Amino acid sequence: MSAVEAKLSELGLALPQLPTPMGNYVPWKRVGDLVYLSGQGPRKPEGGSHTGKVGADVDTETAYTHAKIIALQLLAVAKQAAGDLDKVEFVKLLGMVNATPEFGEQPKVINGCSDLLVEALGERGRHARSAVGMGSLPGGITVEIEAIIRVHD
Amino acid sequence: MSAVEAKLSELGLALPQLPTPMGNYVPWKRVGDLVYLSGQGPRKPEGGSHTGKVGADVDTETAYTHAKIIALQLLAVAKQAAGDLDKVEFVKLLGMVNATPEFGEQPKVINGCSDLLVEALGERGRHARSAVGMGSLPGGITVEIEAIIRVHD
Amino acid sequence: MSAVEAKLSELGLALPQLPTPMGNYVPWKRVGDLVYLSGQGPRKPEGGSHTGKVGADVDTETAYTHAKIIALQLLAVAKQAAGDLDKVEFVKLLGMVNATPEFGEQPKVINGCSDLLVEALGERGRHARSAVGMGSLPGGITVEIEAIIRVHD
Repeated sequence: MSAVEAKLSELGLALPQLPTPMGNYVPWKRVGDLVYLSGQGPRKPEGGSHTGKVGADVDTETAYTHAKIIALQLLAVAKQAAGDLDKVEFVKLLGMVNATPEFGEQPKVINGCSDLLVEALGERGRHARSAVGMGSLPGGITVEIEAIIRVHD
Repeated sequence: MSAVEAKLSELGLALPQLPTPMGNYVPWKRVGDLVYLSGQGPRKPEGGSHTGKVGADVDTETAYTHAKIIALQLLAVAKQAAGDLDKVEFVKLLGMVNATPEFGEQPKVINGCSDLLVEALGERGRHARSAVGMGSLPGGITVEIEAIIRVHD
Repeated sequence: MSAVEAKLSELGLALPQLPTPMGNYVPWKRVGDLVYLSGQGPRKPEGGSHTGKVGADVDTETAYTHAKIIALQLLAVAKQAAGDLDKVEFVKLLGMVNATPEFGEQPKVINGCSDLLVEALGERGRHARSAVGMGSLPGGITVEIEAIIRVHD
């Protein structure tokens, strides 16, 4: 088991199964050391995804937990792409919140993903990022996050 | 003629002329093997672009055809950047739909672009992607898509 | 002083101090020659940021000046990342405007950033870009822009 997965286990967390993309695309694509991870939404263990408008149906704290779920999903994809999470460094996130027009706490929501990445990967989890509000997201999901990672072979 | 352009021709499609950027930027910029393609909207052959809110003025099926138009425009830019479409691999799309707040079929819309890329380029057309809903887009266009490609010299 | 900073000084402009990220992330991350700059909003010299919906509370011309402020902030981060602005080339911008659903002048707004980059860096300031409308932005800021730069060491 990689050190990163041992750390996740210590936190009581496990990598989820990889989702099937909802369209004609692949979950990740590698070019040299970089891997582009497709955007992911917060899946429920029993199937389906967390939906609703953040700032109306869903509050910041709940959306934070959704961003944390997405972090685990991105880690699962990163493991598949890199073979071993101990080789993975997170470079950049685009964190997208399905929010009301007046919502302003996108950074607090996306911290749910960023906090877990830093906790699990340490210095290699620290990334550049934008956290912004979308007009709408696929199937009404609350949050979608895409990422760029670097593989240290 | 490249194999990719022969395939397009077989599909009854042709590369459009390159648009003039609506601002102080360039249609593409290359760094090493990667080329960043600026976001494009669906232009009409007679001039102007397809506009409207997807989910209200424009339905998913129509927006799919707009995304397909954009795929051709991106291929035209990719050809200019790489010199030859047979050297081009698509890496990543950001597909942005000008949608109502409750719209949820962004993946189906952006498949219009993804499907054509895969049809024309085969394995090299398969890409990572996010398909999301914007609050608004330039000039009220229905869809905008930006891309990262890799050039195999 | 770098040639770029001399040019800024000639234009009556100076690099601002670096902001503190509003979340668990870093202002930039470098991989090889590329540096990913986190999204930035338009800060006021006296503290706080410019806020409001472009197309309702804020007009295009004012939002253009906000994008110009962000250009200076991105240059300040680029200097920190590269050590010297004369080594910096701008590759790609994602310009995000906090706009009303019917707003369509995102390119004119983001030109505030693009124009200054080209004026200050010349050919190395010319970049690929998308300029789009968001449903909402952190703290209600008018504009947010993220960038990818290349360092010529």
